This record gives sequence, structure tokens and C-alpha cells, in this order.
Amino acid sequence: MAVHKFSLADAPLERSPGQDGDVFAGNVLDQRHGGPVTIGFGRYGPSQTLEETMAVHDTMVILEGRITVSDNHGSVTADPGEIIAMQKGDKVTIRSHENGAVTAYVTYPHWQQPDA
Amino acid sequence: MAVHKFSLADAPLERSPGQDGDVFAGNVLDQRHGGPVTIGFGRYGPSQTLEETMAVHDTMVILEGRITVSDNHGSVTADPGEIIAMQKGDKVTIRSHENGAVTAYVTYPHWQQPDA
Repeated sequence: MAVHKFSLADAPLERSPGQDGDVFAGNVLDQRHGGPVTIGFGRYGPSQTLEETMAVHDTMVILEGRITVSDNHGSVTADPGEIIAMQKGDKVTIRSHENGAVTAYVTYPHWQQPDA
Repeated sequence: MAVHKFSLADAPLERSPGQDGDVFAGNVLDQRHGGPVTIGFGRYGPSQTLEETMAVHDTMVILEGRITVSDNHGSVTADPGEIIAMQKGDKVTIRSHENGAVTAYVTYPHWQQPDA
């Protein structure tokens, strides 16, 4: 597999599984490509909240806006250029602020199952 | 392991192994923390060049400046908010432009060996 470059425009943004808010994710590299990690972009509308038990390790780089992630140990808030790392098994609440957010993510292993 | 937040200021930037240019990398999460991926930040001075055979899968998010990566299939150039994905075994030339660059990276597996 060669070197790849990806932009937000390459991501087929879809509503995140299991929620009906204004939170969208789109993979640009995943289990279909044979590598070990999934890479993608996320887009959050203003003041959205997502509760999740992490099925995979997820590294999120904030590109625009602001994201706060809380768990039972406390909470962290990240601005553009900062990283939030969540571990498999973490029970988290992910929240965007008034201006929404754009993120890049890398998960290990893949968070989606291969198509049947 | 709880949820973590990292900024460039958290990265203990050191000259990249095996080169003497103005290219620095600093892990913020790695083999010492027990997770599967290494997370860090990189800083490139203006017009630096780094030749490397990738020992790991490396996802690079451009935070500032511009990076071009070339291999024998061609080359890609990424600006802030864009991602370059390199695969284990890729022989690449990584080049910064006139304004240098700041990147975030996620590698799988860890690119550093545990301390002896």
C-alpha cells in the first residue's frame, strides 16, 4: 500500500452509529485497506453530546472548535492542535461546544466490522 | 488508563533518531503506558528532508505548515488539517517547506523499543 493523503472532503461523513444527534464520522482508511488502524474525520455540530463505551483505542486530534471528554476520573477539554486519547473500555461522554468541532481520528483496532 | 489530553507543550521534543537536521519528535503516550499505539508531536524546521524506511504504520496529522512525502509511487503534499498515512515498509522521503511544520502522529505498533 502506498503513501496516502486525506482531507476532510475525502471522508464519507455519516451519522455516528447509535445516536441521532448532529455528530458525523467518516473513515478514509479502514479494514477494507488491509492496514491495522482506521483513520477518519469527525464533524460535531454545536453543543452535541455522545455517550460511549469505547470499543477500540481512539486518538482524536482537534482540527476546529473544541471537544470535552469526561469519564469517571474527570474531564479534559481540547482545542485545535491538541489530542485526546481514549482507551478501549473507557466509558466516556464526548461533548462539543458552541462552535461545534472537526476532528481527525485514528483507532486501533478497526471500529467497524468488515462488510459481510 | 484514563482519558488523556495532550498539547505540543507536553511533548519532550528530541532530534529524530539517525538524522542531524532540524526535525524533532516527542512522544506523549507510548510503550511506557501500556496501550497499543504511540502518540506524539513532531516539529520540522524550514526545508528539512528526512529519508526513512517505515518501521511502523504512521499516521501524521498536519497542524501547522506543509509536509510532502514521496515514495516510488509518487508524492503527496498536506496542509493543516490534512492527514498523511504511511505504512510499515514504505521507503519515504519526508520534506517540510519554507515555513516548517508541526505534526501530530499516531504509530502502530510503538516505534521505540522499551527502555532496557
